[in-house]
Amino acid sequence: MLKDRDISFLLYELLDTEALLKRERYADHSREVFDATIATARDIAEKYLLNHYQKGDANEPTFDGERVRLIPETKVAWDVMRDAGFLKTRGDASEGGLQLPEVIVRASMGHFLAANGGSCAYYFLTLGVIELIRSFGTPDQKQRFLGRLMDGDFSGTMALTEPAQGSALADIRTRAEPQADGTYRVFGQKMFISAGDHDLTDNIVHMVLAKVKGSAPGVKGISLFIVPKYLVNDDGSLGARNDVALAGLLHKMGTRNSTSTALNFGEKDGAIAYLVGEEGKGLACMFQMMNEARIGVGLGATAGASVGLQHSLAYARQRPQGRQPSNRDPASPQVLLVEHADVRRMLLAQKAYVEGALALCFYASSLFEDEHTHPDPEQRQRAGALLSLLTPMVKSWPSKYGCQSNDLAIQVLGGSGYMREFPVEQLYRDQRLNPIHEGTEGIHGLDLLGRKVGADGGAALALLREQVLAVAEEAAGAPALADLAVQVKDSFEQLMTTTQALMPVVARDPSRGLANATLYLDCFGRVLVAWLWLWQALVAERRMAAAQHEDDLNYYQGKLQAARYYIEWELPMTVPAHKLLREVNPVPFDMRDAWF
Amino acid sequence: MLKDRDISFLLYELLDTEALLKRERYADHSREVFDATIATARDIAEKYLLNHYQKGDANEPTFDGERVRLIPETKVAWDVMRDAGFLKTRGDASEGGLQLPEVIVRASMGHFLAANGGSCAYYFLTLGVIELIRSFGTPDQKQRFLGRLMDGDFSGTMALTEPAQGSALADIRTRAEPQADGTYRVFGQKMFISAGDHDLTDNIVHMVLAKVKGSAPGVKGISLFIVPKYLVNDDGSLGARNDVALAGLLHKMGTRNSTSTALNFGEKDGAIAYLVGEEGKGLACMFQMMNEARIGVGLGATAGASVGLQHSLAYARQRPQGRQPSNRDPASPQVLLVEHADVRRMLLAQKAYVEGALALCFYASSLFEDEHTHPDPEQRQRAGALLSLLTPMVKSWPSKYGCQSNDLAIQVLGGSGYMREFPVEQLYRDQRLNPIHEGTEGIHGLDLLGRKVGADGGAALALLREQVLAVAEEAAGAPALADLAVQVKDSFEQLMTTTQALMPVVARDPSRGLANATLYLDCFGRVLVAWLWLWQALVAERRMAAAQHEDDLNYYQGKLQAARYYIEWELPMTVPAHKLLREVNPVPFDMRDAWF
Repeated sequence: MLKDRDISFLLYELLDTEALLKRERYADHSREVFDATIATARDIAEKYLLNHYQKGDANEPTFDGERVRLIPETKVAWDVMRDAGFLKTRGDASEGGLQLPEVIVRASMGHFLAANGGSCAYYFLTLGVIELIRSFGTPDQKQRFLGRLMDGDFSGTMALTEPAQGSALADIRTRAEPQADGTYRVFGQKMFISAGDHDLTDNIVHMVLAKVKGSAPGVKGISLFIVPKYLVNDDGSLGARNDVALAGLLHKMGTRNSTSTALNFGEKDGAIAYLVGEEGKGLACMFQMMNEARIGVGLGATAGASVGLQHSLAYARQRPQGRQPSNRDPASPQVLLVEHADVRRMLLAQKAYVEGALALCFYASSLFEDEHTHPDPEQRQRAGALLSLLTPMVKSWPSKYGCQSNDLAIQVLGGSGYMREFPVEQLYRDQRLNPIHEGTEGIHGLDLLGRKVGADGGAALALLREQVLAVAEEAAGAPALADLAVQVKDSFEQLMTTTQALMPVVARDPSRGLANATLYLDCFGRVLVAWLWLWQALVAERRMAAAQHEDDLNYYQGKLQAARYYIEWELPMTVPAHKLLREVNPVPFDMRDAWF
Repeated sequence: MLKDRDISFLLYELLDTEALLKRERYADHSREVFDATIATARDIAEKYLLNHYQKGDANEPTFDGERVRLIPETKVAWDVMRDAGFLKTRGDASEGGLQLPEVIVRASMGHFLAANGGSCAYYFLTLGVIELIRSFGTPDQKQRFLGRLMDGDFSGTMALTEPAQGSALADIRTRAEPQADGTYRVFGQKMFISAGDHDLTDNIVHMVLAKVKGSAPGVKGISLFIVPKYLVNDDGSLGARNDVALAGLLHKMGTRNSTSTALNFGEKDGAIAYLVGEEGKGLACMFQMMNEARIGVGLGATAGASVGLQHSLAYARQRPQGRQPSNRDPASPQVLLVEHADVRRMLLAQKAYVEGALALCFYASSLFEDEHTHPDPEQRQRAGALLSLLTPMVKSWPSKYGCQSNDLAIQVLGGSGYMREFPVEQLYRDQRLNPIHEGTEGIHGLDLLGRKVGADGGAALALLREQVLAVAEEAAGAPALADLAVQVKDSFEQLMTTTQALMPVVARDPSRGLANATLYLDCFGRVLVAWLWLWQALVAERRMAAAQHEDDLNYYQGKLQAARYYIEWELPMTVPAHKLLREVNPVPFDMRDAWF
């Protein structure tokens, strides 16, 4: 589970989540409802997801020739989550939804993901399909699929990747043939489809990208289809088995309780498919689900890192080992691991990654919220632009540093950390998926530098700069933070300079200009998280004065120390990166295959 | 397997291994013998170790109540390695040994480790025990154990760690009680003992650290004992089962085909034990084996990284995906992964880590060689001092960057890299052990900054500086390398300045002065490897002029490009580190437990 104190700090101290209650959409809610929702999620996570975290790893899904079988605890968890309404959290009240704000939905998800990321995959993908059909489905599609998905009778997947194409969606080969009745028949193979088959629900709704015969080459030829595993009759009953077959299960290093499948569409007459949106506009629709999933990946990475920190901290607090270097008396008692400076460094780095990443995910969720429900249209537009700019980092930064965080968790435990008798090695294996799925780091680097920062003349970057400078200015007035404020402000201005240096090269010679885009992504992420840390420190500093409880005082002290750690230890790594980026360092670009 | 070209470059182009033939000890050898030894190792590795790399992972050792059972391929490999003489490579001819130079022994080991690190653990530990008994054993101990170990009838372990003490050997509790007949009885529990039980050999010789009753507290009370699983009669036959029992098997994330055991000594009357060396001098003896094992860990980490690079390069060379960013035509053909700049960056980083680490391991082995066989006593002393200084990096640098390298190998393969259907995920899991065993990173940081750099008034550091500046001076004369030479020289001088700033703090307040020792270790390692890259580039630059074959030209070009990558992309990360180190940054040190 996430740490409750981290959630309440972000929701009610850093962000003003209570202010959402003033928006008409949330007028019937209260802070009590928000908190009860999150508490219910924690409770479910603890009782029904965590209970089979290790069992699901040791007992992978199997195919019995008919369908994929999961360990039964997975179905129990699905049912409990469904019955508690967690498939309806976003939906409008008019659709039977709970109409909850995005940050509350995400905070609840955070608990689920912390308990058992693998088992949650079915749930998350279904949530994404629900949103996709809500946004783009026809009345008939909604009538046939939406209610059943929200009720948890059906589950969903996103079927994008193919064996021969990987990250490059432009090259998908799955084809859709229009039929006289307005449906399509889909033929092709999809790969790495999470939740592509299982025994949790009666039906599975695949959201499939395919190209209609004769459509434009590249991404402009991509259309989006609903392809159910079983057809759904007009009366809602299940009809014939559609022409979708499991070609095989893939066997992952971690997150093993979520199936990863290869699916064949149209081995016989073609899989019956329903067009979503317009022909050739499929990718634009799908991006809604992908962007939501990207925030989900960032949150999942954060949750795994949080659990790793909690385990390694607990271990370091109970395990005596060695003495301080200044103590030369071998007869004196051992000290706890947490007393060693290097162990504290490892725990502090984890804290900086975990709480930096969580702030990033919650901030992104608040932007999502504002994009959709802010009363001021200009604010909606601004929030949307900012979120679009930040999405590559929301996906990638927690994924990269989540891996480093879980690596440190192992190191704190030493030999025990490497053993399956302790839980941190599984977190490390699970976490490694995150820098890959929903776009690799490389893909997000290209997206950020090749599209996002230059979009609309750099408008979103300018908006971000306003936010950063506002926090830096306030922090400059707090004596304990003034030096950190200078560093954050300076690092953002360095980022602006680097961006301005790169943009003409990207425009003139995209291959060369984008060659170091992954480094740019990391550099941007570090600056962004440094700002979020300064912001957290500013809030902590202000609240310390009025804090009544020692726990709160300690928590705020921890925020200040972690902010200082991040800004002094991690942010300066951008300095060498700026140099490489500005000179458009050609070393990787110029490397030749034959020289390896 | 390691890349043969990497081995020949290091042995015969960077180091002058043929010059060893002039030393009396190697007078009967030839380059052909050296090469044939390494080729035999490669052949064995390919046929008998690689064949069960995945099987050993999927079928862990099990305990049948009597002994631990390994998959049978492990025993076949053991027998083949033994029969080919690989347990006798270092031994004197007078003992039946092959009397081979250390670099040849290590190059052969490199192939074994690359094929199957888990299965090699039995072999490596036995080699270490052989050397330990050769160096410190009594004539009776040699007669009873040494020949049997060299013949592969017995195998060996090092039994240091205990459940309640971890890295801090000063606190071991295993006790040894002297007996009237000159033997001892040992009582205690050891933990994480690799190869602690198995079915490869009739007997297992445990090298056990224990404290004789009444001895001094701390490390000065530690003695070293031989504790065989079965006693050995005077005629060489096996006697009674000694009082050593398997308490349990531990289950690792990777390197699963090497058993990790908990062993109980003295559940009944005490395990019969034979003192090696003097009472209270056990740790000094054991350090011989530990130092050898530390180089072995560095080499194993390097080997795993090398295999990851080979796999990911092969994948990138055959997998078409996407187009160059400058190509806007979606109808044009896909390019290979290796054509993408970001993929080349990931491969180039792996190359920089792998070949930098291999140069470090081979250089360390050449120092070991000179320490033991150089005809000039002063050179022997210098080599020994340098090796002692560098050992923390030889262990730690390949381990840390081997993990990063195998992480990049997964990333190059994308989704496939995460699947057990492809081999890189297992390498990633295996590799993670290396920053833990034979001393964690934290321990080596303390060793380097707390003991090694200051030893003998900094004599070894001064020796290293001579070596570094000599290479930098030569490289400064080569136009293609002049800028890199300046950077390497400057980085070493920065390291000297940082060291001088830290030493008084370490002396005055060790706890504070050593608080950032792990950062110092990384900083030192980066500088060291940058120097080794400059040296490799210098050799490549010189040999290019005379190179006849395109393969050689390409290889040397690759060396130049990788050197430039390392010095331009990785070395500058030391700049922020120097600042933190010099200011004795107090953030982790000052962090309080309650603030987490």
